[in-house]
Order: sequence, then C-alpha cells, then structure tokens
Amino acid sequence: MKLQLPKGTRDLKPEEAIVKDKIVSALKNVFELYGYSPLETPAFERFDILASKYAGGDEILKETFKFKDQGKRELGLRYDLTVPLARYVGMNPNVKMPFKRYQIGEVFRDGPVEKARYRQFTQCDVDVVGIKGMTADAEIIALTSRAFRKLGFEPIIKVNNRKLLNEIIVACNIPKEKAEEAILSIDKLEKIGRKGVIDELKAKGFDQKKIGTLIDFVTAKGSNEKQIEDFYKFFPKSEGVKEIDKLISLLKIFNVNVEFDASLARGLAYYTGTVVEVFLKNSSVKSAVCAGGRYDRMIGEFLGKGEFPAVGISFGLDRIYDAYVEKNKDGQKTTAKVYIIPINTLNDSLKIAEELRNENVKADIDLAGKGPSKNLQYANSLGIPYVLFVGEEELRQKKVKLKDMKSGKETLMAAQELVVFLQEKLSFLE
Amino acid sequence: MKLQLPKGTRDLKPEEAIVKDKIVSALKNVFELYGYSPLETPAFERFDILASKYAGGDEILKETFKFKDQGKRELGLRYDLTVPLARYVGMNPNVKMPFKRYQIGEVFRDGPVEKARYRQFTQCDVDVVGIKGMTADAEIIALTSRAFRKLGFEPIIKVNNRKLLNEIIVACNIPKEKAEEAILSIDKLEKIGRKGVIDELKAKGFDQKKIGTLIDFVTAKGSNEKQIEDFYKFFPKSEGVKEIDKLISLLKIFNVNVEFDASLARGLAYYTGTVVEVFLKNSSVKSAVCAGGRYDRMIGEFLGKGEFPAVGISFGLDRIYDAYVEKNKDGQKTTAKVYIIPINTLNDSLKIAEELRNENVKADIDLAGKGPSKNLQYANSLGIPYVLFVGEEELRQKKVKLKDMKSGKETLMAAQELVVFLQEKLSFLE
Repeated sequence: MKLQLPKGTRDLKPEEAIVKDKIVSALKNVFELYGYSPLETPAFERFDILASKYAGGDEILKETFKFKDQGKRELGLRYDLTVPLARYVGMNPNVKMPFKRYQIGEVFRDGPVEKARYRQFTQCDVDVVGIKGMTADAEIIALTSRAFRKLGFEPIIKVNNRKLLNEIIVACNIPKEKAEEAILSIDKLEKIGRKGVIDELKAKGFDQKKIGTLIDFVTAKGSNEKQIEDFYKFFPKSEGVKEIDKLISLLKIFNVNVEFDASLARGLAYYTGTVVEVFLKNSSVKSAVCAGGRYDRMIGEFLGKGEFPAVGISFGLDRIYDAYVEKNKDGQKTTAKVYIIPINTLNDSLKIAEELRNENVKADIDLAGKGPSKNLQYANSLGIPYVLFVGEEELRQKKVKLKDMKSGKETLMAAQELVVFLQEKLSFLE
Repeated sequence: MKLQLPKGTRDLKPEEAIVKDKIVSALKNVFELYGYSPLETPAFERFDILASKYAGGDEILKETFKFKDQGKRELGLRYDLTVPLARYVGMNPNVKMPFKRYQIGEVFRDGPVEKARYRQFTQCDVDVVGIKGMTADAEIIALTSRAFRKLGFEPIIKVNNRKLLNEIIVACNIPKEKAEEAILSIDKLEKIGRKGVIDELKAKGFDQKKIGTLIDFVTAKGSNEKQIEDFYKFFPKSEGVKEIDKLISLLKIFNVNVEFDASLARGLAYYTGTVVEVFLKNSSVKSAVCAGGRYDRMIGEFLGKGEFPAVGISFGLDRIYDAYVEKNKDGQKTTAKVYIIPINTLNDSLKIAEELRNENVKADIDLAGKGPSKNLQYANSLGIPYVLFVGEEELRQKKVKLKDMKSGKETLMAAQELVVFLQEKLSFLE
C-alpha cells in the first residue's frame, strides 16, 4: 500500500487549518450579525437532483463524482451549495420567508487538476430567499463589506445589473438569442482588453459597429452618479438602472462604497438582476475573492413551482486564505500560546496548566519528560510564543520563569501574576 | 424529479445547526486550551488506504461508499477519522512528536438505516500521537471532563485498562486465542447482566467455572483505591494495574474523578492500554457519549514501520446534541437576537441595525416592508427574543420601542440606551 492522497485533494495541516478556522469564524460571526443562520446538508445528493435541467448544468455534471448505495440508488457528491439550498426550500414548504441562511461546506468536482484547483474545496455561501426588493441586495453587499473589513482587508466591490446589460444589448440591436454569447465576451474585458473582446465577438460573427457601440456603453467612465445619470438618458424607463440607482443609494446608508461597472457580467446564466464581484486592495491576490448576485428564477424553475426571488454571494475561501496568510504571518503551527516545561515539577506544572486553562489561556505542557533544551526546540519549531519554566527552586519562592520566544527575554515572576501577564500579552497576538 | 434526500441522510435545519455549532465551538475551545490543533483531511481516501488490513476492518469496509475518479482510481468516502490520521502521520514524517490534533468531520457508512443511525454523521476525535506515559492518557481524560462541564453536563467517566483485562483472562486459564471473544461478552455486562454474559459465554463453549471467576474479577466492587489494592494482591507485577493506578493519581491533580470499572472493555480490538467511556448524569441519554483509549500499535502497523504510541477519544456528537437540546430549550430558529420593524423609517432603521452590529448584537430587520403584525408573527415564529419598533414619532424624540417577546413587555427607551440595554439582556441568553 502506497501512502497517498486521492488525486487533486489535500490535507490542511494544523497551521493551515488554524488559519482557515480563524477566517471561517470571522465570516460566520458577520453572517450572524445580519441574522443569517447556518444550514447543513449532506455531502452527497441523489443524482437526479444534481442532474436537474435547472441545476448546475452539463459541464458541471460531467465533473460530478457518481456512485451507488447498497440499495443501488444513484448518488453524487455535491458540486455546489445552491442546488442543496433549492432542494431544501422545496422539501420544507413551511420554511419562513425570507429564509436567510449561510452554508460553509465541502464541494467536489472531478475536473482537471491545476495549480490551486482542487477536486474538493470549501464553499461559503450566504443567500436570502423570498425578497424581491433591493434592500436584500444591499444587505448582502453590506455584509460582504463588513466581512472583509473584519478580516483586515479593504474590499473593492464592483456592481452591475443584468437587466441593464440586457437593455444595452437590445439597444445595440443584437438579437436576443445572441445576448448570452455577447455577455460572456464582455465579461472578459478586464482580462483580454477591448481589442481582445472585439476580435472574439467578430470571430463569433457579430457586427463590428454593434460591438463598438456595445463596448462604448459598458465601458462608460465617471462616478457612479454620472454613469447612472447617463444611463437614465439613454434608457429612461430602464428597470436595471433604477435598481442599480436604488442599490447604490441604500448602500450609502450602510456606509458602503461600491463601483458601478457596467461591463461586469458574471459568467453564470442564472443571474437576473444585481451582480457583484469583490477584489482586495493591496493584495497579490488579483482575482475576485467573492461574487454573487440576484437569481430570481432558478429556485422556482428547479422546484417546478412557485416564485422564489433570491440573492446570494459566495466567498472564495481558498483565495481569501492566500490573501490572509500574505498579511498575517505569525508562523504558529499549534493553537497553544504557552508551553510549560516542568523541571522535576510535573504535578505542580500540571496544576499551573489547569489554572491557565481555567482563565482561557491555551496551554500546552511537556508530556514526554524531555529535557529543557529538547523542549525549547519543540516549542520553537511549533512557533509557540511563550515558554514557562517551572523549577523546584522557583516554586519554593512561588515563582515561575516565562520566556518570550520572539525576543528571547526571560522574566521571573510571581506565579499569581502569570495569568494576568499572559492574558494581556496574548490579547495583542489574537 | 422527486425532491428527496439520499436514504439515511438528513439536513440540519438552522435551529439544529445553530445548536450543533454551539457544541462544536465549545468543544474546539476546550481542545485548544490543551494545545490540540485542528487537522482537515479530504472526505474521501484512496480505497486501498481504507481497505488496509490495519484500518477499519472487513465489516466497516462492506459499508464503505466506493467510487472512481475520471482517471479510474478507486476511492471511498472515509468511514472514520483515525485512518486519515494514520495516513497523515505516515505521509508527514517531519511532523513534530507529540502530535496533538483534533478533527471534526463528516464520515460515511453505507449501513442499515435505523433510528438515529445515519449514513453520514459527524465524528469529533482528539488524539495525541507519540507519548507512551500515562500523562497523555490523563490529559485526554481531563480535557474530556472539562468539555462536558463546559457544555453544562456532569460526566461519569469510567476507566479500565486492556492490559489488566488480558492479565485477568490469563489468570482465569482462558486460552489467549479466546480472549477477544471473552472481552466482547464482558463488554455487555451492563446491557445483558451477569446471567446474560454467563449464558453467552457458555454457548460459546467457555468453561462455566472459569467464566464465574472471570466475572467475579471484573465486577469487583469498592472504591478505586480498594480495587487497585485488591488487584495488586492478585497481580503484584501487573502493568495494567500500575497504569490504572498512575492514571487515577494523575487525574487527582487535574481534579477529575473517574470510576475504575474492570469490566469496561470497549469492543474494538486495537486498544492496548487505557480504555474510557463517558456517560452523562441526569440525562435521558443513557449510552456512552464519548469513548476512547490507548492504541499503541495501530498506527505503526498501518504504516508498516516505526512505533507510534497513541491515545485518543471520540465525542459522539449526535448523542451530545440530543442531551444538550434536552437541557437547553431556547427555541431559537435563527441566530438573530433582535428583529427590527421599521414603520416608514427604513433608512433610519437600517442605520440602527448597523449600529447594533457594530457592537456585536445580532440584528435582523424586515427586508420586505411587511406590516407590524406580520412582522411580529415572523419574529415570533423564529423565536427571536426581542423586537424593536422604529416609528417616525419615536424617532423625532430620539426614542425606540423594544418588545421583550417572552414577557410581552414593551419599553420605550432613548435610542442611545439601546445597545447597552440589549448587550446586558442578551449576555444572559448566550
């Protein structure tokens, strides 16, 4: 037997899982501040649910891990958290609307393995189902902004509206059945530039003049207000402009700045209104770390009944992780904040450890009876910030010796001062 | 398409996921107080890893969900978190010993579906690898005791030692190859009683007299000290008694009481020393909520090299959940603690909501523009403890009206008092 992981998967080592936990608990806290509640669904679903016409689509279905249970029922590992949400809403007709839920969970795609693309990854979705008005869109974006600020980032939030995009396409005399294709190319403006998009659309058989007008529309410059004013001139009755106008006004109340970017499209066909993408200022992570929008039809179509307006956002945990690690390098490979080295004082040291834990200080202790220098090596290799030596002579004087592993400084202090001293020092490290 | 869950699985509704989250975060906090760190491994493993002779065994392998990736590699959903731990230790030879990790994750077994037995369930394991001495066993048990107390339970912790059990069996002249069979029956003493065990062992062909002696040994009564004294008389050189003696002495330092129960066996063959089971006082959950022990050989055998002494414990989250819900009935179906009802004051209400969130108060707000009575119904059906009415007239006086949903009492208060008032009230609810 060769020890190896399934292709395209990875372990999160303790030092990685600790950081992920920090990010996840900060996100959860923010979601809950807005009254969103957790939901858990199984890691696998019945295959016919995943294969529904209104679910993830053919491409994603090809990448779905498929298997059977002992009763020969066809099952598949979930590839997203939106299909389970739709199924849950359908199976629980008594759920109160609006239904505000978040879900953080593993999803699986048996796709090509590339750098930083895994066959199992964590999705983190926040959605509100049952609200048509822009207040819900604004809340989701405000929550997103708060989440990134809480993690120490400055987010750049770009917004647009698919209704407006459709209106622009109609105004450019592009036939409706080609709208989706045009949107897919427009979505690449940032990536391949104006010329790239023109070439691509020309190759697809679009009329060059229409393309020019389209691109001029969506790359309009100016402040949010100026753009909105201009679009109102062209489309006085536009639902899309009205919505984006309303959204931006509401976000001012939340103190959240966004950039109206009429070229923002988001690939997925199911968006029906607001679309949003979030980038991070001053980060080497350049791609979007978070994206979403309004999808008023998908759940109703999936369930084959009823109207379920919905708006949601998905946080890209892996990218957020990379950006977070870049900014926060504490090098801790364990949760412990202090490592106790008993020097012939095991029983007393165990008592001290318990006292620290009673005061919520994360304390590890030598369990092996190693010598002081091996113990120091161990604490050092795990990046534990403080080491506590408990010697017989010191104990007689009711004292202990604390070593700050970063500065190397050792302080002899009264045992009863220890907890307060550590709590204060550690509050800066958290 | 029929909307249904895969057989033997379930969703955790928000009100259930909220409780599970509370339990999990209390447990994580306690594990980390002892310097244990999180580890994450994929939900599936290569099938040959799961099928290893030293892994879960044939019975469990029959219940393993098996599938292939697009490269035709055989994979299986993990059935426990111990095999992934062993694989991780083997694949990371530089990991520092002792390796103290916890892992909370979903595991999968395609077995018969019974009441409260699911095909996907959460395991919660804490293990320390690399320590032979009883200090590690004591730490794991102390951590367990603290975890249950933190959750508001009084744990009954039963301990025994497999070495002692083997010594007793040898002393009863039971052949070594039948020891495992005898232990399996002894394990049922609590369940089927003395007569039941005797009948079962007789049917298995055991000598009646030997059975009697065996049962007398393992059902010895008296205080821990008395039992240890008695066992020392019979087995003056016993490793098992020495270990249990040491363990109980160490646990006194931790202020943890345990019950030495020589009949405690634990089904699994891989235990080599300490075994432990935890029950809850004053709970209708009668079965063990937590169990574990020392398994010094399994990881080394699995890896086919090296010595990896280990001791670990596994928390039965589903049972702990049931016991917790029995004691803590707050009926909250959402995370929100206050629900804001704007009465023609949406913008000001949104600002108040944001101010509450700035102070870490979980605040939901009507996004639909419903009337006050529909809003009250909504807040009531979700069990939100407070409702805040924001009316125009009150706002002019810089006041708001807070309703305590339990008592029905309404208080008109200055808007600036609100945060402090709520923080104080809610601190009792947390």
